[in-house]
Amino acid sequence: MVDLLGLLAFGELTAFERMATDARMAPTLADKIELGRMAAAEFAHFEAIGNELHRLGVDLEQAMAPFVSALTAFHNLTAPSDWLESLVKAYVGDNIAADFYREIAGRLEPEPRSLVLSVLADTGHAAFAVERVRAAIASNPVMAGRLALWARRLVGEALTQAQRVAADRDALTGLLAGVGDLEEIAEIFNRIMAAHRQRMAALGLSA
Amino acid sequence: MVDLLGLLAFGELTAFERMATDARMAPTLADKIELGRMAAAEFAHFEAIGNELHRLGVDLEQAMAPFVSALTAFHNLTAPSDWLESLVKAYVGDNIAADFYREIAGRLEPEPRSLVLSVLADTGHAAFAVERVRAAIASNPVMAGRLALWARRLVGEALTQAQRVAADRDALTGLLAGVGDLEEIAEIFNRIMAAHRQRMAALGLSA
Repeated sequence: MVDLLGLLAFGELTAFERMATDARMAPTLADKIELGRMAAAEFAHFEAIGNELHRLGVDLEQAMAPFVSALTAFHNLTAPSDWLESLVKAYVGDNIAADFYREIAGRLEPEPRSLVLSVLADTGHAAFAVERVRAAIASNPVMAGRLALWARRLVGEALTQAQRVAADRDALTGLLAGVGDLEEIAEIFNRIMAAHRQRMAALGLSA
Repeated sequence: MVDLLGLLAFGELTAFERMATDARMAPTLADKIELGRMAAAEFAHFEAIGNELHRLGVDLEQAMAPFVSALTAFHNLTAPSDWLESLVKAYVGDNIAADFYREIAGRLEPEPRSLVLSVLADTGHAAFAVERVRAAIASNPVMAGRLALWARRLVGEALTQAQRVAADRDALTGLLAGVGDLEEIAEIFNRIMAAHRQRMAALGLSA
């Protein structure tokens, strides 16, 4: 539970930073404001998890520590080079992460489960990203190939970093508490990738 | 009034973006979280001004428009190259801007005045920046010269961009409504620069 909250907290903190940074690339003031609003919502989620960890008597920084290097490496290795890449990254990455958290949360007690699910509530980013990316592809179909490649690279880097976290037996055991065996992990993984392929189709991209 | 709120809104929006971006340079997780919290507070201020403009029946983007190019140019020309430069910039720049807004707000009716003053309420950034910069100079006195030069460059760029805004007669007239004459403007300017010198001394830097 503490491991899950620590990962989730650092995930929200980096999502906040990334969205706020991406807002600088926004092509219009309206886009900038919308992305800023979503970033502020991520920070509020981060604070909610921090308060829960505090209530549990757990140090926030210690809870996040096992995940800092992998998540930071992921973001450093996948810095978007333009506005559309940043939208695809936020949409693809945040949803894969959210699906993973939901799989784990389903195994928690009702109280922590409802906190995790409320923190995962969509900040409106999904609809925003889908609309912007689809419009960009409609006006310039060549874009679809480049963005599809970009999404594949994101998934590849995410898996690489997930393996790094998995190599730390303690962090992995803490995270997957409640998950039965390797077969169950494979099923979770398959469900997450199936949902990812559906989202790529919603963007108008081949997975 | 609308011009002041428009400038203030865009100032808060860019302050949010800048603090959130600077949080990526934070040397520790605790610093990162503190800066993120201050950035989220700036965004809440931005939303408060946006709501007030909406209440007044004014379009937020139109109100911000006269100030977008000057403020964006200022930030592009003064991108901090490290964590300490980002702290000095936030401290020096935000306070000069806040002093200017307070001078103008003093001439407003009580209701808009209290909104402006509440939005200018310190988010805790000042004490945070002073403490971090003083500690850095104490452990490495050579730093003081470089950061003092940086602060002078910030003031120079700010004045350059302020002149650009002033060259737009409509924006200037709107902003300085209630300010009597050139002599009064000179007095406001002198008060703002005197306060700036005091803040530089608080940082342990020569102005």
